[in-house]
Amino acid sequence: MRFYKVVTLTSALLVLTSLALHADEGMWTFDRPPLQAIQQRYGFTVTQPWLDHLRLSSVRFPDGSGSFVSPTGLVLTNHHVALEQLQKISTPQKNYVADGFYARTRAEEVKAADAELDVLMSSEDVTSRVAAAAAKAPNAQDALEARKAEVARIEKECVDTMKLRCDVVPLYQGAQYWLYRYKKYTDVRLVFAPEQQMAFFGGDPDNFTYPRHDLDFAIFRVYENDQPVHTDNYLKWNAKGAADQEPVFVTGHPGSTDRNDTVAELETERDVIYPISLKVVGRRLGVLRKYASLGAEQARQAAGLIFSLENAQKAYTGEYNGLTDPKIMQKKSADEKALRDRIAKKPEWQKEYGAAWPTIQRTQEVRRRLYKSERFEQLRGSSLAPLGLIFVQYAQEIGKPDADRLDGFHDAQLPTLKFQLLSPAPFYRPLEQVLLADSLQESLEELGPNDPFIKASLAGKSPTDAAAALVGGTKLDELAVRKELLDGGPAAINASNDPLIVLGRAIDPTVRALKKTLDRDVTSVASAAREKVGRARFAVYGTSVYPDATFTLRLSYGKVNGYPMNGTKAPYQTTFFGLYDRSAGFDNKPPFQLTPRFADKHSQVEMSTPLDFVSTNDIIGGNSGSPVVNRAGELVGLIFDGNIESLVGRFVYDEEKNRAVAVHAGAIVHALRTVYDAAPLADELDPR
Amino acid sequence: MRFYKVVTLTSALLVLTSLALHADEGMWTFDRPPLQAIQQRYGFTVTQPWLDHLRLSSVRFPDGSGSFVSPTGLVLTNHHVALEQLQKISTPQKNYVADGFYARTRAEEVKAADAELDVLMSSEDVTSRVAAAAAKAPNAQDALEARKAEVARIEKECVDTMKLRCDVVPLYQGAQYWLYRYKKYTDVRLVFAPEQQMAFFGGDPDNFTYPRHDLDFAIFRVYENDQPVHTDNYLKWNAKGAADQEPVFVTGHPGSTDRNDTVAELETERDVIYPISLKVVGRRLGVLRKYASLGAEQARQAAGLIFSLENAQKAYTGEYNGLTDPKIMQKKSADEKALRDRIAKKPEWQKEYGAAWPTIQRTQEVRRRLYKSERFEQLRGSSLAPLGLIFVQYAQEIGKPDADRLDGFHDAQLPTLKFQLLSPAPFYRPLEQVLLADSLQESLEELGPNDPFIKASLAGKSPTDAAAALVGGTKLDELAVRKELLDGGPAAINASNDPLIVLGRAIDPTVRALKKTLDRDVTSVASAAREKVGRARFAVYGTSVYPDATFTLRLSYGKVNGYPMNGTKAPYQTTFFGLYDRSAGFDNKPPFQLTPRFADKHSQVEMSTPLDFVSTNDIIGGNSGSPVVNRAGELVGLIFDGNIESLVGRFVYDEEKNRAVAVHAGAIVHALRTVYDAAPLADELDPR
Repeated sequence: MRFYKVVTLTSALLVLTSLALHADEGMWTFDRPPLQAIQQRYGFTVTQPWLDHLRLSSVRFPDGSGSFVSPTGLVLTNHHVALEQLQKISTPQKNYVADGFYARTRAEEVKAADAELDVLMSSEDVTSRVAAAAAKAPNAQDALEARKAEVARIEKECVDTMKLRCDVVPLYQGAQYWLYRYKKYTDVRLVFAPEQQMAFFGGDPDNFTYPRHDLDFAIFRVYENDQPVHTDNYLKWNAKGAADQEPVFVTGHPGSTDRNDTVAELETERDVIYPISLKVVGRRLGVLRKYASLGAEQARQAAGLIFSLENAQKAYTGEYNGLTDPKIMQKKSADEKALRDRIAKKPEWQKEYGAAWPTIQRTQEVRRRLYKSERFEQLRGSSLAPLGLIFVQYAQEIGKPDADRLDGFHDAQLPTLKFQLLSPAPFYRPLEQVLLADSLQESLEELGPNDPFIKASLAGKSPTDAAAALVGGTKLDELAVRKELLDGGPAAINASNDPLIVLGRAIDPTVRALKKTLDRDVTSVASAAREKVGRARFAVYGTSVYPDATFTLRLSYGKVNGYPMNGTKAPYQTTFFGLYDRSAGFDNKPPFQLTPRFADKHSQVEMSTPLDFVSTNDIIGGNSGSPVVNRAGELVGLIFDGNIESLVGRFVYDEEKNRAVAVHAGAIVHALRTVYDAAPLADELDPR
Repeated sequence: MRFYKVVTLTSALLVLTSLALHADEGMWTFDRPPLQAIQQRYGFTVTQPWLDHLRLSSVRFPDGSGSFVSPTGLVLTNHHVALEQLQKISTPQKNYVADGFYARTRAEEVKAADAELDVLMSSEDVTSRVAAAAAKAPNAQDALEARKAEVARIEKECVDTMKLRCDVVPLYQGAQYWLYRYKKYTDVRLVFAPEQQMAFFGGDPDNFTYPRHDLDFAIFRVYENDQPVHTDNYLKWNAKGAADQEPVFVTGHPGSTDRNDTVAELETERDVIYPISLKVVGRRLGVLRKYASLGAEQARQAAGLIFSLENAQKAYTGEYNGLTDPKIMQKKSADEKALRDRIAKKPEWQKEYGAAWPTIQRTQEVRRRLYKSERFEQLRGSSLAPLGLIFVQYAQEIGKPDADRLDGFHDAQLPTLKFQLLSPAPFYRPLEQVLLADSLQESLEELGPNDPFIKASLAGKSPTDAAAALVGGTKLDELAVRKELLDGGPAAINASNDPLIVLGRAIDPTVRALKKTLDRDVTSVASAAREKVGRARFAVYGTSVYPDATFTLRLSYGKVNGYPMNGTKAPYQTTFFGLYDRSAGFDNKPPFQLTPRFADKHSQVEMSTPLDFVSTNDIIGGNSGSPVVNRAGELVGLIFDGNIESLVGRFVYDEEKNRAVAVHAGAIVHALRTVYDAAPLADELDPR
């Protein structure tokens, strides 16, 4: 795949932890590493320095993971994590995505448009502060507001004193809150990318599957003060990789999982959210493919979105199949019944936690009713169109006390917001217009003409005409205009007549009203009940559990291991032999064609070099670009996907068949040396 | 796999034809080829000379298929079809199975122990004769007897006049009877076999799966009068093979299918027959693996049986999964209901056919009750032990008028029976003893100590002791002894005190009594009803249908085509690249190891040479060794397996995923030339 942080389908409700731990299951926080399980299963003693080194070598990308792999600031991630940046620096004349890139000198390295890289420096349990703030509240909604306010205060204090990126993260469905402090890098330069065809060989068919033959890697160099970052916290390259059955560890930022959702919540996902999501994604892909068919330049512009929506479509389909699999839902029901039975046996537990499940059930009824509004009272698809509303809300929010602001506008969040708004990455108006028109049309069809959002956004026009006027008239696609508005602050924004800002003003009341209703009737009530379920689980199963994924740094352990597949066994690794076989098996036709470079240099490739491999590590979208390390803390691989059987991993982990798919460390340097004529870079990664 | 004629699980009841034809479905008799479908789907006009040439080039092996591939008598089949013969000529000193074989001169060719090859010379509809004979019968059982007697008469007349092998075959569940006349070859000599490891690379895990990397072929030469057969009826070799999407045709001998079984019959299979079969196979495999673990020679002796039982286990499992798949059974029920509804609408149809389904339902109730006796009142597992009963029945039967004899002892069948009884192939007493002991133990457990078969076969001993006495005391493992008994006829046999003959006398009454009951209460009634269902299907759906498989020559059409697999696409072909990749993916460990020859000569192999490929042709066990030919009638491949998705093909054909797996014609000659140092043989097959 693209083991992106797939945008989660569930709302931003808080999350908790798993019942019983099986096997190599778990995405563990660094403050509570599974020392005992690793010792028992693999006879390996994890030490604090080992953990610290791993943590400080690990990097978060805006939608994935990565790691430092040299003392000279080189960072390894997936090509598909780098893709957004590759697209942003590409032009009709120079296509970094299709052609790949190699900077032979530091001077040739190309600065990414707007990549922010985060390294987790420290974390701290702030549950008691957040809980204390909420304890005084008279009702669920006030408690939610109080928690949000306290979170904003904690983040602001941290930013002010530490000069770091500071995020308060709810863990275990809100049974805990942690402050995560990150060192932030924003000068990130491209050193190497293979052609996308080799990174993503096999395309959408092979995505989320195995055996696999992808060189899904890219290399950046991180700078500070215009100098490469020098650090001891990098992973030493091990081109030999890991042997079959060898224990391996993955650090990275899994985006979200729903393993601790109640059955009522899973049923909402199954019956309402996934069917709508699949419909939306299918529709949007149709629009994008039609646009891409207009010409080579249009195809280039749309490629990234198509890529990411195909990825989402395949992921959602696999997850949806999990939800509609009676065996999985029966297991979920049985697990939930077992927990509730245990709670019911102790009167004090029953009093404290017993009502949580029926409460969540009730919130789901509301959520189902409101879901179409939640989903379609938004500007979607286009990335340009929502900027108006962001400016409008920014102008309103920054005047308020930090604690009272909408999420996304707290002081601690402003640097990241501004970094994104001031990105020099280009917008393509014809593409934005097509996407906005389709999104408005879709909202009209789903909500009807009398919906307040529809009235406000269409203002009597047809979706096509409205989109033409909005995208045709806006200047928000110009960086200078956005900078002027930010610099001018609320006054400048309030004075603007840019059509997208006008639109933002028109829809803002509807958007806020819906959010308020959802907060009052769903989020606040459900989050309190989910927190209770989380605490109930602690009460019954103790503390040796891991929280659902939250796009924060996690450690997963496992071993290199094949698995039973489609009547036979999947091998633990593939080799370059397999790449050439699969290409020949499809007559070298897309998406299985070799690039000219790989076809031409095939006699220089040592075919038996391992290419990709699988391990039992428990990962999910967001882990893309994660390093795979051995017991010595050396880099042996680069996570880039999960197999098709891992897609139900959003809900349950199955050690028999759930596999993480990685590029072999040896494949990367072998390809650099033999195919890409990039021996100096290979030597920098893997000195010999 | 081994696309053997897997011993059918259903009894020898007669069979009929499919409802509605989908796509590339069908195993067609040569007298009713699907000319129109081939024309429509592939724009190819099948001519009678094209069909005749294919038919006369096609060969039947005792448990598979093959074809003439040179004017000098060379016959191509699968290694796994040749395996039984390879085992029979192997000794502790020379292992043809493990080491492979190449006869550099005709003098070096090795005569197979007891291979009979049949070529279909002609066929004739004899339905009216069989029907007329049965029409006079007052009841179902007499009708069954009358049909059998008429069949025996027709076969005998044919043998006496034509000097051919003559079989009367029921088609369309007995709605038709055809006389098939075969030319028979019994002097068959081994020319080439690869090492079993390369023929069966990937072993049991890869069996019945794809992508695949097997060189599952062997080459014999057929002799008559000690001279190679010279014939124009052979398939010209086409080393280029078939392109993706190219139409291809398969001729061969599919063993049996149950596509036209009624739902009541399928339920018996699902609830009774398959569960017992899987239990039996699992048990027997355990015994064989234990025996094989005793030493290298024991392993060699047991290898063939283990191979064939693992194959059966995997096939049965896939078929059973089909029967327990609600979607498949729902489709079967819906199809049956549609047919019965159509019948019910016409009073004369309802009168003629309407009672057939409830009748079959009733016979199934009896069959379920008698199934344990049917299954366990037999000597199974051992191939030596049943010889005693065969001699005993032979002595009784040949004294009767031909028409009154048990199946297997008709005049027309005697040459084949004697050829088998006089095979020089060795028996291994310790293995036979272990298998017989287990089979007796199993029958004891299933039937209880008071069952007449148990009493007769154990005669008061324990199964272990009984087996030791029987195998220890018999001389039937000696060819000279068997020859003496045959030559001596009934008098000699009746005078014999060989323990297996004594056992045969003891169990014969029980075996005959059960057969009589089954004939009276199940076979005769069900076969009459099944024939009605068959005729009902003709009435409703017309005559453009094919009969269920009967191990007679069939034609299947289709095209080379990959398919959706495990989240991605399976390629239409694999290459030698893939073979080396799969080996390296498992660190060259069994069953994925390369033989020394393949490892050593790897630099001489042109890796991009196609190795195996898949097509939509509708095949099943018995098609092993079938040629794949193109429109020009040239040999482009060699069927050796079906994919895992094809196992439900016993009941339904699914064009989307059901695939036949073949060795590419080019792979065979490339391997002969580059790896096996057998260029002269390659040139004989593929002159250039």
